[in-house]
Amino acid sequence: MKDSNRDVTMAERDQLVLRRTLDIICGKWRLFILLNLGEHTRRYGELRRMMPDVSEKVLIQELKSLISLGVLEKESFSEVPPRVEYRLTTKGRGILPHLNSLHLIGAPFMED
Amino acid sequence: MKDSNRDVTMAERDQLVLRRTLDIICGKWRLFILLNLGEHTRRYGELRRMMPDVSEKVLIQELKSLISLGVLEKESFSEVPPRVEYRLTTKGRGILPHLNSLHLIGAPFMED
Repeated sequence: MKDSNRDVTMAERDQLVLRRTLDIICGKWRLFILLNLGEHTRRYGELRRMMPDVSEKVLIQELKSLISLGVLEKESFSEVPPRVEYRLTTKGRGILPHLNSLHLIGAPFMED
Repeated sequence: MKDSNRDVTMAERDQLVLRRTLDIICGKWRLFILLNLGEHTRRYGELRRMMPDVSEKVLIQELKSLISLGVLEKESFSEVPPRVEYRLTTKGRGILPHLNSLHLIGAPFMED
């Protein structure tokens, strides 16, 4: 975004794009779900074990939100017991490098 | 972050750093405050005019939070009327390139 944008109130479009960024990464668990999936396809149970502090209800809700945003996809297998797998969509994998560098924003501000 | 980190529950330290990232950029207005300041020093009134949809109370509260996180600094001038200016700290300016590329996360997911 060129600096000239910044001298006037941020263009409407820029704000909407940034709001979409915040939809994808903000919230207590969304970013961690995305990074724990990464390039992998993971079963629901696997994701739950990787994120022991998340309640079932919250994890299911956040997975649904990320699917509706187009970042995640879900595949269900009609087996007994039923198997459900999650992975990043192609567009989701496309932003993985940016997600993997988000720690660079917080790192300088850690209270060591 | 190496992928081996991702096979086991994300290391404690990585999580804390990402939480700090989310502290800095999440919330309805924080990222917009940071990007509207950018490399500039701006008066409080100027910031308010750039962000007409923010209430006075919320803007003051978010500015305080960003100061306590160490991303912003405030300078008051004992003039009549009093003058207050805000700018990014040196560390804050250090993460500006990362903040300026956050739109790359949301851009592929816009409903055009």
